[in-house]
Amino acid sequence: MILLGLDPGLGTTGWGLIAADGNRLSHLANGQIRTEPAMQLPRRLSLLFDALTDVIHTHRPDGAAVEEVLGNSNAQSTLKLGQARGVVLLAAATAGVAIGEYHPSIVKKAVVGTGGAEKRQVQAMVGHLLPGVKLTGPDAADALAVAITHAHHMASAKAMMRRVRD
Amino acid sequence: MILLGLDPGLGTTGWGLIAADGNRLSHLANGQIRTEPAMQLPRRLSLLFDALTDVIHTHRPDGAAVEEVLGNSNAQSTLKLGQARGVVLLAAATAGVAIGEYHPSIVKKAVVGTGGAEKRQVQAMVGHLLPGVKLTGPDAADALAVAITHAHHMASAKAMMRRVRD
Repeated sequence: MILLGLDPGLGTTGWGLIAADGNRLSHLANGQIRTEPAMQLPRRLSLLFDALTDVIHTHRPDGAAVEEVLGNSNAQSTLKLGQARGVVLLAAATAGVAIGEYHPSIVKKAVVGTGGAEKRQVQAMVGHLLPGVKLTGPDAADALAVAITHAHHMASAKAMMRRVRD
Repeated sequence: MILLGLDPGLGTTGWGLIAADGNRLSHLANGQIRTEPAMQLPRRLSLLFDALTDVIHTHRPDGAAVEEVLGNSNAQSTLKLGQARGVVLLAAATAGVAIGEYHPSIVKKAVVGTGGAEKRQVQAMVGHLLPGVKLTGPDAADALAVAITHAHHMASAKAMMRRVRD
């Protein structure tokens, strides 16, 4: 089973693909889609959509996942993230790939073993769990962490995945 | 010149089309795209994208506009709006329609004459400025208000339109 993890962002969207065979995981590919702040927003969203659609068509994942967004006190940051996230979810839906979401603490617990782990611990454990992986950057690492989480929950009898909510 | 005004929202996205011939405006069509809260978010975004793409392909606007989002203290509301807005901007970009944005006070000033006007005054003036219009609902009225604003600024020598920012 091929699983796609996504870490949406307007400036950088991380993505990571793993193959899951029961509890055995292996790394397939990871990358970061960047858009330039100097570009018009609709153009940036269009580039993000097209690049992610390419990734999906190339690798044909069986499922995808993102982290739940807890929100931010900075409304403009939340708006930017929301705009990018909407386009990321649309790209998955348009390609016919079901996409679930996990609370950040579930991702930390799945990857590090504790829900209160720090971001850099998560990234270090991604390298440990996927030997030989070359990380494109921190957003790609975060995306792989979500893919790993998705694999764990797909493998467990009672999938704890929750569909992406509003 | 055919102009499309948009009022993005996850539950309801208003749209309104006007024809502008210099300062002469006339109503062409308006509507509201609804998505059900019971549906999965990616599906809702997909329906919104497809419905808006249909509107654009049917009416072939020469330009489009949205209101600038000032942000909201409720992060989850801002996230929802952002996700819908990202998909709305993408639909315009994908169809090759340039889309600008206006500060809400500019829209109020263009339609009512004062930047501090109330929402219901804006909606009442839309009916006055576009005689014979049958409004689908308040979101369609707000969308028409943005289209009217766009027409005013397109008509003026120095367009005050600002491209959609991040």
